[in-house]
Parts: sequence; C-alpha cells; structure tokens
Amino acid sequence: MKEENVVIIGSGPAGYTAAIYAARANLKPVMFTGFFSGPAGGQLMTTTEVENYPGFPEGVMGPELVDSFRKQALRFGTEMIADDCVEIDLTTHPYTVIGKKEKRKAKAIIVATGAYAKRLDIPGTRDGELWQKGVTACAVCDGAMPIFRNRELYVIGGGDSAVEEATFLTKFGSKVYIVHRRDELRASKIMRERALSNPKIEILWDSVIEKVEGNGKVETVLIKNVKSGKEELREAGGVFFAVGHKPNTDFLAGKVELYENGYIKTQPGTTRTSAEFVFACGDAMDYIYRQAITAAGTGWGGGRHRLYGCAGC
Amino acid sequence: MKEENVVIIGSGPAGYTAAIYAARANLKPVMFTGFFSGPAGGQLMTTTEVENYPGFPEGVMGPELVDSFRKQALRFGTEMIADDCVEIDLTTHPYTVIGKKEKRKAKAIIVATGAYAKRLDIPGTRDGELWQKGVTACAVCDGAMPIFRNRELYVIGGGDSAVEEATFLTKFGSKVYIVHRRDELRASKIMRERALSNPKIEILWDSVIEKVEGNGKVETVLIKNVKSGKEELREAGGVFFAVGHKPNTDFLAGKVELYENGYIKTQPGTTRTSAEFVFACGDAMDYIYRQAITAAGTGWGGGRHRLYGCAGC
Repeated sequence: MKEENVVIIGSGPAGYTAAIYAARANLKPVMFTGFFSGPAGGQLMTTTEVENYPGFPEGVMGPELVDSFRKQALRFGTEMIADDCVEIDLTTHPYTVIGKKEKRKAKAIIVATGAYAKRLDIPGTRDGELWQKGVTACAVCDGAMPIFRNRELYVIGGGDSAVEEATFLTKFGSKVYIVHRRDELRASKIMRERALSNPKIEILWDSVIEKVEGNGKVETVLIKNVKSGKEELREAGGVFFAVGHKPNTDFLAGKVELYENGYIKTQPGTTRTSAEFVFACGDAMDYIYRQAITAAGTGWGGGRHRLYGCAGC
Repeated sequence: MKEENVVIIGSGPAGYTAAIYAARANLKPVMFTGFFSGPAGGQLMTTTEVENYPGFPEGVMGPELVDSFRKQALRFGTEMIADDCVEIDLTTHPYTVIGKKEKRKAKAIIVATGAYAKRLDIPGTRDGELWQKGVTACAVCDGAMPIFRNRELYVIGGGDSAVEEATFLTKFGSKVYIVHRRDELRASKIMRERALSNPKIEILWDSVIEKVEGNGKVETVLIKNVKSGKEELREAGGVFFAVGHKPNTDFLAGKVELYENGYIKTQPGTTRTSAEFVFACGDAMDYIYRQAITAAGTGWGGGRHRLYGCAGC
C-alpha cells in the first residue's frame, strides 16, 4: 500500500485549502474527494450564487468556486482519488485511510468532511423542484438576495438557529413566520424571548409545511396545523430550513474525540484533534460559523503542525 | 456626530470580509480604510502574485485581490472613509472612533488593523529595489515560487520563525543559510536542534547582510561577520526576512487586553475582545497563521456576536 505524507478527506473549501497549502509545501498530498455517496465538492455544490466569498464582487456559482479550488490544488500537485473514505485505522502509525475502492497509508490525516444542513422531505422543496429557488437551508448565506426582500418568509424549526435565522431575516422580509411542529420552542430562553418580542416574527405553533409551490420560484406554502388538522394556503416568498446540521463524522466514532453533536473536538485555536497526526478543519469541527470562507480559513491550519516544518508551534 | 451600527478599522482580508458580512446583514457598516500612514488594503498591497488564496487557480496579484474585496464590500453597502483611526474612546457606549479627519460614534467596533512583517533597512531590499524580486518577508507565501528552486537562499533572523522558515525553504532551495547577528539562536531548543541537524541548513553566526544586489532579481548578498569585520560576496537566489511581525495595535493600549507582543487577546474560537462590543479579527489577533485566507476566515466572525442577530452564541 502506498505511503503518503498526508491524506486529506473531503473536498470542500477546507479540504482544498489544506491541499493547496500542503501541495505548495511540497508534501504531495492525496485527497479522497468523495464520490459514491454524493458529489465531490461539499455543500457549495448544492448552492447557486455565492455572494459572500471574498474575492468575487459579482458573486460566483458554488460549483464554479469549487472547480477553481480544485484546479488550484491540482496545479501545485495534489493527487485526487474519487472515492469515499469509509474508515480510518489509527492503531498503527503510519495510519491507514480506507475508501470503498482505494487504501492509503498516511503519516498525517486531515479530516475535512464537512457537514450538511438537514432538510425535511417536503414536496416542492426537493432538488430539481424549488430547492435554491426560494427554498434554502442557510438564511445567512441567502437571506440578502433580492427575491426575499419585503416578502413573507417561512422558517422551519424551533431551536436557537431557527430563531437566529428568523431574526436575521426580519432585516429583509416584510414578515417572518417560524413554523414549528410543537407548542413551545426548543430555543434557549433568551432566544425565545427575542422571537416572541419581535413584531416582525410570528410563530405558527403546532404547524408543519405540507407543500411548497410556485412557478420557478416559491409562491405559496400549504400550512397544516397538526392538532386541528386544518390546512391553510399562504403566499410565501421563501422557505428556510433551520432544523440543524449534521457533520459527516460517523466514521470517526471511537477514533478521535467528538462532541455529543458529532462535531470533532479540536484544541482551541488549532486544528489538532485528540489523535496525534490527525487534524480537522472546516465544518466538521466548526458548528458555529459554517461559512465557506471560514472553512477555507481553517483549512490552512489543517495539519500545519508537524506538516509544514513547524515543530515549535 | 453620526452614529453607526458598526465601524470596521482596517481594510485587509479580515476587514473586508467583516464588511461584506455586515453589509449583507443590512448593518450599513462604515470602514476606516487607512490612508495617511500607508496604502489602504493591508499587507496584500505590498505583495505581487498570490498563489495560495483559494479560488484563484492561476494566482492573483495582491492589489487586484484587495480591489475585488473592496468592490464586494461596496456592492452590499459599506461606507468607506479614507482615514486612519488614531484612537477609540470606549468610556461611553456608543463608542467613538477617532480618525485624523473624521469621527464616528459606533455601537460596535471591529478591529482589523492587521500586522506587518518587520524588515531591516538593507540596501537593495527596499521597495522599488529587489523587494518582491527575490526579497520577501514570508517564506510560506513565496517560497514555492520557481525563482527559488535549487538556489541558495538566505534567511535573516534567529528566532523560531527564522528556523521554521528556513526548514520550510529546504524543500525548495539547494541550501538555506540562516544569517544571524549573534552567536546563538533565540529559537526554542527543539527548533535549534532542528536547524543544527538539518544538512541543508547552515547558520552564518555573528553575521549580517550588508547589501543585496542583482539585475531585476536577487543575485548576490554581501555578508559581513560583525566580529571579524570580514566581508564576503556570495551568490544568492533569495533573501527572506524572518525578524518578526508587529500588529498595528498601538492605539488600543489600555483599551482592550493585548498580549505582551501587542496582539489582541480574544476569547478562544471567537472574535470577542476584553471590551464588550469590540471585536478583533485577522492578523491583529492572530500571530500564528497570518495568511490572507485565515484573516478572511476570521472576518466573518468579526462582530458576529450581537451584530448578526445571534444573541445565544
């Protein structure tokens, strides 16, 4: 089995940044890009226009941005393996990274497998339907788009991030509804109070969205009260999932320390995990910021220690 | 005096990213870009080609990248003030940001004033001479460039970062000399051992570079032994300053907590400083990574708390 200096798992902004830096440091990194369980490239592949990645004043399409990352990583000498990593074996060093097809020994591993925003399977919101045409899972990324201005917006969820996203959206929409299937919010007290006291936010208790419809963009939502069974068709300009994120870290259970929510624990301010020579960057270890630029920013830290000749830090 | 939601001080990758995010959150941010004491735009303005900012596979000129940040921040509604901030007054909230010409009240302040790599004033290395033509102050940024391959490279300094940069450069140069004016390294023990045991690194003790010469690129260095006074002209492919960095934070002394080295203290993993409503991002608070992409990555965190509607985090 071939032995590598560094194997990077994942191909989003964090993984590619780690690859660019490792490649420019002559480390000849190898990247498991993902393949069978979804497209390589991470969450940016499912977005349309990205307006907040600094350096692109006119915006850039998510897949186009990923393609530029990829070319840059290739330019300096990154080997790409179109395969999913299913397991890492840390029992002996060099470690082993095991894909569905390929295996490599690795002196160091950089985990950059990202996370995904959970979505509910509501008719009308799926890929190829109104997903990214008024239906999104990131208010901070997409809320400022013109299609949402002065429209009635619907946020699905009941936790802190639902309230946070709804509050954010009040800057753009005429009114923001939180659609929550229960009769109280899971959000923390301060967030609950914030939602209840904001005149532009209204909470639709015991409610779910049954269907989203529109001609090329979101136009209506069908709201159902789960207690009364009553349905109501409402005009809508946007639908925002805020039902949490899940990091792609199942394969790390028992190998490196994870938080209860599945995110990878790193030493504060670094990308070191609990296992020596295993580093983590991007959304797989960041459950707060979750932005392309933030993920890329931690990518440079990915494996810096001991990889780039920095023994002292 | 006009009262602003948020005033950003500094116009490098961190400041512009903070501006892009704050502007897209409808906060109408105001930026003191710097003006009198040097060009707006930060350290990228003094670099030529940037190969490691993800998204630009062919590389991008530093000033061009800054210009794209600027356009993006303007597009979403950032007010730019071409002025240096000389003081902030935190005695009453809203605070006051005081420039050489302008003053603004600010509910929140994001400090993104960056740092600079110190240079010695050696003939031949100045702007307009061989600076950025083989003379640089960032081995990690520039070391991979073709002009340095298989050449004899000279690192000036004696601390950890000099050894780190020299070690990094051994991947590219045929030989790396550390030019140090004393007879022992200030570097930590592990770094010293690393330098002394690396066959590609040689330390020129008690030595300084008197002059750098070349026709459009570095060709020779004049080395002087400060004890014997002996001078020696040597062939050289590159000269790297590794004599430390200095953050642009003098105006914050006594206002927010700083480390002894002048960098701003932030709560780990956040951009919060010791003063409420004052946030710091980029190189002014990061003395480890110091990369454009890293600075930009912290910019999004700049002021997120309480600014973007996130009360709970």
